[in-house]
Amino acid sequence: MHLHHLPALPLTLMLALTWGSYAHAQTRAAETPGPADAAQAKFNLLDRTAPSIESLPDDQYGKLVRYGHELATRTYAHLGPEVKNDKMRYTGNNLACTSCHQENATKPFAIPWVGVTSTFPQYRAREDAISTVEERINGCMERSMNGKVLPLDSTEMKAFTTYIHFLSRGIPVGAKLEGSGTKASKAPNRRADLVAGEAVFKAQCQVCHGENGEGKRVGVKGDAQGYVFPPLWGPDTFNDGAGMNRILTAMRFIKHNMPQGTNHTAPVLSDDEAFDVAGYIVSKPRPVKASLERDFPARWNKPIDAAFPPYVDGASAEQHKYGPFPPLADMARQTAEKRTSDQAQPAAPASR
Amino acid sequence: MHLHHLPALPLTLMLALTWGSYAHAQTRAAETPGPADAAQAKFNLLDRTAPSIESLPDDQYGKLVRYGHELATRTYAHLGPEVKNDKMRYTGNNLACTSCHQENATKPFAIPWVGVTSTFPQYRAREDAISTVEERINGCMERSMNGKVLPLDSTEMKAFTTYIHFLSRGIPVGAKLEGSGTKASKAPNRRADLVAGEAVFKAQCQVCHGENGEGKRVGVKGDAQGYVFPPLWGPDTFNDGAGMNRILTAMRFIKHNMPQGTNHTAPVLSDDEAFDVAGYIVSKPRPVKASLERDFPARWNKPIDAAFPPYVDGASAEQHKYGPFPPLADMARQTAEKRTSDQAQPAAPASR
Repeated sequence: MHLHHLPALPLTLMLALTWGSYAHAQTRAAETPGPADAAQAKFNLLDRTAPSIESLPDDQYGKLVRYGHELATRTYAHLGPEVKNDKMRYTGNNLACTSCHQENATKPFAIPWVGVTSTFPQYRAREDAISTVEERINGCMERSMNGKVLPLDSTEMKAFTTYIHFLSRGIPVGAKLEGSGTKASKAPNRRADLVAGEAVFKAQCQVCHGENGEGKRVGVKGDAQGYVFPPLWGPDTFNDGAGMNRILTAMRFIKHNMPQGTNHTAPVLSDDEAFDVAGYIVSKPRPVKASLERDFPARWNKPIDAAFPPYVDGASAEQHKYGPFPPLADMARQTAEKRTSDQAQPAAPASR
Repeated sequence: MHLHHLPALPLTLMLALTWGSYAHAQTRAAETPGPADAAQAKFNLLDRTAPSIESLPDDQYGKLVRYGHELATRTYAHLGPEVKNDKMRYTGNNLACTSCHQENATKPFAIPWVGVTSTFPQYRAREDAISTVEERINGCMERSMNGKVLPLDSTEMKAFTTYIHFLSRGIPVGAKLEGSGTKASKAPNRRADLVAGEAVFKAQCQVCHGENGEGKRVGVKGDAQGYVFPPLWGPDTFNDGAGMNRILTAMRFIKHNMPQGTNHTAPVLSDDEAFDVAGYIVSKPRPVKASLERDFPARWNKPIDAAFPPYVDGASAEQHKYGPFPPLADMARQTAEKRTSDQAQPAAPASR
């Protein structure tokens, strides 16, 4: 048998697959963009004061950054399903980008946009391809915002990327970021306990998000004024293709950002509590995205907590949704190692 | 009369308009993207070794960077008018991007792509708008490449931006770059002497670019293999909307990059020689771009050497093409200062 001499799986992936950080890393770092060099030193977002739009002059760049900030923080009022101009109804729910990307998309470990200009284009497992920042934004539009893609040449898309450019000031292109995405946490080696999760929800979340996870409106339905506190399930929130509908991603986000005011330095919930309440939330009904089977087409790097078919590792849909995850992580690690090993194998001598 | 209280013209523009650097600066820096901060420190490209594609693994990012490099260096073979697949004929001439963007688009002061990821989106006078890097690439496609725009979602566009991302590694987002664009040079205070320019051309340029500026083909017409030395005029080169068709831009480029092997540290041609030979080249026939009057719609920041109508300063088309330029630079400076002064004027007290 002739084995092709393919490139080795990058070491960073294997490291990323180690227990405790696999869920997030699988989506983001399935290949390394090249050997480390000075340019790719770690850039720390944790002690950095994010640039303020107040400092910008009122020129075209400043105006576009401000529009991007406005679109991010009041998405529902410009692109939501209740805006008057039906041509501008791009999102399918009344969330804002900043419902998840907290503090104007600048908060460390709350999936900040800071530095995103430096890190895109990048490999994305969901597409098994190199994605531009515009494509990444549209990935969110179709899932977390349960809507449709923004035209690549629209003013709104340019406003988003220009705001991101502004937030990324001073961060070297290609840098690795400390404080990006969500912070690793260790899921317990068991199925999520939805009864315990419900108790956490009632104790910690319900006061803001409502008994039925319906959130709290600013005004009334139809006014395009969005929410004080976003809905977590039901018809007006992220759909089942969103990253936040994956229990491990939700757990990481919740642990380091919830209840409101929490940050990564002083989590309120334990790993068990965050895991269970995340399970409770993802157990609830929400909008359904069509054609989800097209996501993660390479399959081998599909996140273990992506709870939609196909499942190629033989584990059940139930386990991919609620755990236990350590066995799935082990399988994913073995698959990745086998890939590396197969690819590193020297080609058989030619028979001629 | 009620005067609106508009923002002052950024100081950088006024500085940019000072004699000696006006031509280039007018296209690039008609507004500042905000107050200077550490993030916007000058980044020096001059002593930097550009990243090499040899260092990249053969993963998707590496493959796309390599494709971008291939498109940049052998544009004619992939996107040119002679390629077999007529759907891929995006450029109207058989140049390569690297016909101007020398050394794989890494050479300082030869309009390098290094750092471009850090500096876009940016204000562009040609559009009087914030442009993305994709729009800037398409600006070149329609002018220097005398072709049509690449689709924003095409693999080829993504390959260009990913190659640019790779070349920009390590450069902070928002940095000012030393070594970008072309290097300032001082045009003599006279009309370009086309007879003298022809003599410079015959002595210094003709051996490579040919007696009639027709360049030197690699093979034969129709083989899509492009040129060893690119044509400078005639049907198979940049059109009249290209930056290189502006005498001051051409002068700056020629002085610091021509004859082949020259760089900014040891120019071969004097300012007079570079000015005259640039005049000789722009005097020659070349493809005509439709609707050029749409370029530089704000008018007041149209480069003084953009030799197409409308001309709003009262000077002749001839002077905008061949000079003398110092009087035009003075007028442009006065216009800019008047704009600043008008805008800085406090609003008249309201009459209510």
